[in-house]
Amino acid sequence: MPRNPFGKPLDLSGHIELAHGAGGRAQAQLVAELFARHLDNPALARGDDGAVLAWPAPYARLVFSTDAHVVAPLEFPGGDIGRLAVNGTINDLAMMGAHPLWLTVGFVLEEGLPLAVLARIVASLADAVRQAGVAVVAGDTKVVERGKADGLYLTTAGVGGIPAGRPEVSGSFARDGDAVLVSGPIGDHGMAIMSQRAGLTFEAPIVSDCAALHSLVEAMFASGAEIHVLRDPTRGGLATTLNEIALQSQVGFLLEEAAIPIRPAVAAACEFLGLDPLYVANEGKLVAICAAKDAERLLAAMRAHPLGREAALIGRVVQDERRFVRLTTRLGGVRIADWLAGEMLPRIC
Amino acid sequence: MPRNPFGKPLDLSGHIELAHGAGGRAQAQLVAELFARHLDNPALARGDDGAVLAWPAPYARLVFSTDAHVVAPLEFPGGDIGRLAVNGTINDLAMMGAHPLWLTVGFVLEEGLPLAVLARIVASLADAVRQAGVAVVAGDTKVVERGKADGLYLTTAGVGGIPAGRPEVSGSFARDGDAVLVSGPIGDHGMAIMSQRAGLTFEAPIVSDCAALHSLVEAMFASGAEIHVLRDPTRGGLATTLNEIALQSQVGFLLEEAAIPIRPAVAAACEFLGLDPLYVANEGKLVAICAAKDAERLLAAMRAHPLGREAALIGRVVQDERRFVRLTTRLGGVRIADWLAGEMLPRIC
Repeated sequence: MPRNPFGKPLDLSGHIELAHGAGGRAQAQLVAELFARHLDNPALARGDDGAVLAWPAPYARLVFSTDAHVVAPLEFPGGDIGRLAVNGTINDLAMMGAHPLWLTVGFVLEEGLPLAVLARIVASLADAVRQAGVAVVAGDTKVVERGKADGLYLTTAGVGGIPAGRPEVSGSFARDGDAVLVSGPIGDHGMAIMSQRAGLTFEAPIVSDCAALHSLVEAMFASGAEIHVLRDPTRGGLATTLNEIALQSQVGFLLEEAAIPIRPAVAAACEFLGLDPLYVANEGKLVAICAAKDAERLLAAMRAHPLGREAALIGRVVQDERRFVRLTTRLGGVRIADWLAGEMLPRIC
Repeated sequence: MPRNPFGKPLDLSGHIELAHGAGGRAQAQLVAELFARHLDNPALARGDDGAVLAWPAPYARLVFSTDAHVVAPLEFPGGDIGRLAVNGTINDLAMMGAHPLWLTVGFVLEEGLPLAVLARIVASLADAVRQAGVAVVAGDTKVVERGKADGLYLTTAGVGGIPAGRPEVSGSFARDGDAVLVSGPIGDHGMAIMSQRAGLTFEAPIVSDCAALHSLVEAMFASGAEIHVLRDPTRGGLATTLNEIALQSQVGFLLEEAAIPIRPAVAAACEFLGLDPLYVANEGKLVAICAAKDAERLLAAMRAHPLGREAALIGRVVQDERRFVRLTTRLGGVRIADWLAGEMLPRIC
């Protein structure tokens, strides 16, 4: 839609009011001067109810995914809810083997949210969009009364295309004997959030690993390795992700605890707060499960990419009718990493 | 994902807890026993991060759209937030001339929400999905602490395909002299919500018009009329929608107030509450703008469809550098239906 010709420019020292969600003049101005300014592209500029997009010929299959985001605080070391949402949805597409193409964003804004905070988050979201080479082609904004949200919530959806000829990957494709790899140290995102909430300071501050992983995934496919499963271990962490895959593929896992990379600061913070890093969220890591014969080749491809430099081979898929995720400990014992039973880290993403 | 094999069946007399959003056992059970049970389809059943979908050959262009939903109350005469979200997103796709194909749903649930309420809303959402012949292919659930939401918020995204050879429609395609039609009486949805909130009762209760309009749109295209613009006048109502189109197309509108259909009960409720029905939300109506020569043909096609029986020709597009929406009143005067300035009806959708 063309810039709203009515009234004064949007005052970024102001706050979100119910009128910003009413569909009238204030909302048109918010959309034009904040969202459209940062996210400008031809589809969005049309201002229609939906974006019309030509389906690119090289893709026979599309991937469609969504994520709701309620992270608190809205801004944290290494990211914010806008960047997190964009990268999270891109990663969901990439984990299915797709090239991310287009995103939509739906905002739920709380009355009283400082417009300056919203502007920073939209600018960061737009920066993540540009970095990843995708486009936000449609959006929606609603406003709820003070006390009916917590600043803002944000739901992204994404569409990507799977290149012709690429073998399908799925959480249900893990097979007995397959190798299990992780793209780097685990627990950074969750502990960055928790440290900030708890007011903890460390010599080396913990920063979220929030990142878009699609270029790493492309490098992994380019290696020619027979990849069966890709998944980003977000909420619930590595242990939860592997328990999900165990159920989907009807297998078990045997991991070597000492092989799982964890930064010393993250390990220290986890110990201090009584958390198990296996259950702590990541936002820029992936788990890959591949044919055992290709494990070294895939590991080399991951380590050659900036987002996989600290990748590691951490274990293997095993037959297990109980679908257990087991770890051989540093002391030579075996422990079970069960499903997370309660709530460890609320609103981590 | 296969049904979570752990624990007792989900107790629908219980409430949403933070654990239902933690990514662990409780969440897996909620997804399996509530969402997957109602929304079952092959894409969703895979339990992956995104749905892999074959792009149907007859479509050269796709439409991608999203809507956030925060309506209060969650259930109202004629619908609920789940049905509203599904139909709203289907309508956004249909208004771009697309056949709706796939939806995603992102839930933000408030701790303490009765599971029975959630179950009713998911069942209703699933019913709307089935009625419309689409599928929910991916979803996400987050839980926030008590007092940080209002029961639940829900963001849908949708992908549709535009049939090959169908001329494009857009809010920017209205031309001087075009005819303006509306598919039926306006204001039903907004006044159904407002009447319930205000505790008003009428002899004939006001029921939301919440409906999926894609079959009406197909009948309209099948008439062969030269359609330029389709839009559903939701939040902000008919007047706001026409002001948006006026800006997009750089035209004005001249409507005949007496030609705009309004149910007597809606008119009475609007008068009682001091509201102008032109600004009241609809959730099952559309505005169509077509070449003047085809107005009668299009009107006939709309009236022949169950969702357009009360369609009416309400005015025409005019040249107007001020982009005004004007109405000739019953008394022969002319009034301007300006942009909505403040917030009239918060959380109407």
